[in-house]
Amino acid sequence: MSRASFTDAALERLAALGLALPVPPPPAGRYAPFRLDRGVGWLSAQYPTRDGKPVLLGRVGLELSAEQGREACMLAALNALARIHEALDGFDRLRGLLRVEGHVASSPGFVDQPAVLDGASDLFNAVLGERGRHARLAFAPAQLPYGISIELAIAFAYDERAQPGAK
Amino acid sequence: MSRASFTDAALERLAALGLALPVPPPPAGRYAPFRLDRGVGWLSAQYPTRDGKPVLLGRVGLELSAEQGREACMLAALNALARIHEALDGFDRLRGLLRVEGHVASSPGFVDQPAVLDGASDLFNAVLGERGRHARLAFAPAQLPYGISIELAIAFAYDERAQPGAK
Amino acid sequence: MSRASFTDAALERLAALGLALPVPPPPAGRYAPFRLDRGVGWLSAQYPTRDGKPVLLGRVGLELSAEQGREACMLAALNALARIHEALDGFDRLRGLLRVEGHVASSPGFVDQPAVLDGASDLFNAVLGERGRHARLAFAPAQLPYGISIELAIAFAYDERAQPGAK
Repeated sequence: MSRASFTDAALERLAALGLALPVPPPPAGRYAPFRLDRGVGWLSAQYPTRDGKPVLLGRVGLELSAEQGREACMLAALNALARIHEALDGFDRLRGLLRVEGHVASSPGFVDQPAVLDGASDLFNAVLGERGRHARLAFAPAQLPYGISIELAIAFAYDERAQPGAK
Repeated sequence: MSRASFTDAALERLAALGLALPVPPPPAGRYAPFRLDRGVGWLSAQYPTRDGKPVLLGRVGLELSAEQGREACMLAALNALARIHEALDGFDRLRGLLRVEGHVASSPGFVDQPAVLDGASDLFNAVLGERGRHARLAFAPAQLPYGISIELAIAFAYDERAQPGAK
Repeated sequence: MSRASFTDAALERLAALGLALPVPPPPAGRYAPFRLDRGVGWLSAQYPTRDGKPVLLGRVGLELSAEQGREACMLAALNALARIHEALDGFDRLRGLLRVEGHVASSPGFVDQPAVLDGASDLFNAVLGERGRHARLAFAPAQLPYGISIELAIAFAYDERAQPGAK
């Protein structure tokens, strides 16, 4: 087909940032990595990994700086993109992100979780454009499972029809 | 048209409580204030403000009393109503609230978050009647972003068709 | 009718585990125990009870062992099943769980919330089979309302048509 796909364009924008879709980590228990149902997709927890291993452990404001927190959010968002790509066999059927819930493990005094979470939002907006728009919530727990610094809960909308020409 | 709209009735019930829809605070980062998709609306975080500024900061059971926590919930719920009104251009197309998730910044010993969150539920029920019914979850974090005391996560159902006569 | 229902089969699998659907505790405030809307159901908070009373209070890693946390998750999941059964008048119209969000009240050093939450996932998978598959998120708050140890937030998909022969 002659039309360049949205998937190709998104992956190119990712490459221009020096990034590529990783292999996301497997579920940490007896659950599914995602669920698709009648146009809405639900991802299991996304967190920062490199080569499939958790990285940037700790709390922002203590073991991690806000800038490292932003980087951790970017890595968690990158895993989310990989899972969405896997779930929909590309991004062509992605109608858009819906809600991103961001949990930032934080020291008692650190309160600028929104600036940290922009590390995830910026990646979604840059790679997915209008389809990356999302409602967002920020939380500041004292700790997260396994000592991870960032956990994202994401719901997205997709087109249920298989698209001709879509990978 | 002769039929009084549901929007008008809801705003009258609000006025009878001595309240009016505020201008809700803008997003705290690079995300959207809400997302509408195929009949379900997702609000970004709602928190207590007056004149657009965060108020009633602190933890219930420490800096704030339970009664102040209830008032903070009411103010956060008021912002939620304003966002829903904005998203749907009134309340006529609101089919109903779905889920209200309430996070109450709490001292270690304070555990009656449900009574505090009734400050939000009572407002939704009073203003929206049957359409205000919602499932609810209560959480008791040690802190929330910017030191706010209450954060609400809300999903609602709406009618996708534009309604004739609806504002 | 000759066809054995999915509901019957699920309840038999539950009985084989030595379990039965409890009467779930009433809402803790002015909200609904669940909301159904256009194919998606939203449960209010589910937590561990016996005979309608909260049990296994405290934090995993402190007042409770991980094994007790798993048991608490199983009891909370049992209440969730009871609510779904009530909401849909059986399990026949349940198309499947969507998302399970698990909050495990935890001591500062305890980080294996996923293993604890498998206590809920295992029950869902055992009783509902393929329809029990779910995306999952794990959180590790320092405390939960009323000092409960486990809180589950659950969304599920259901068939809107009444099924002939379904109870």
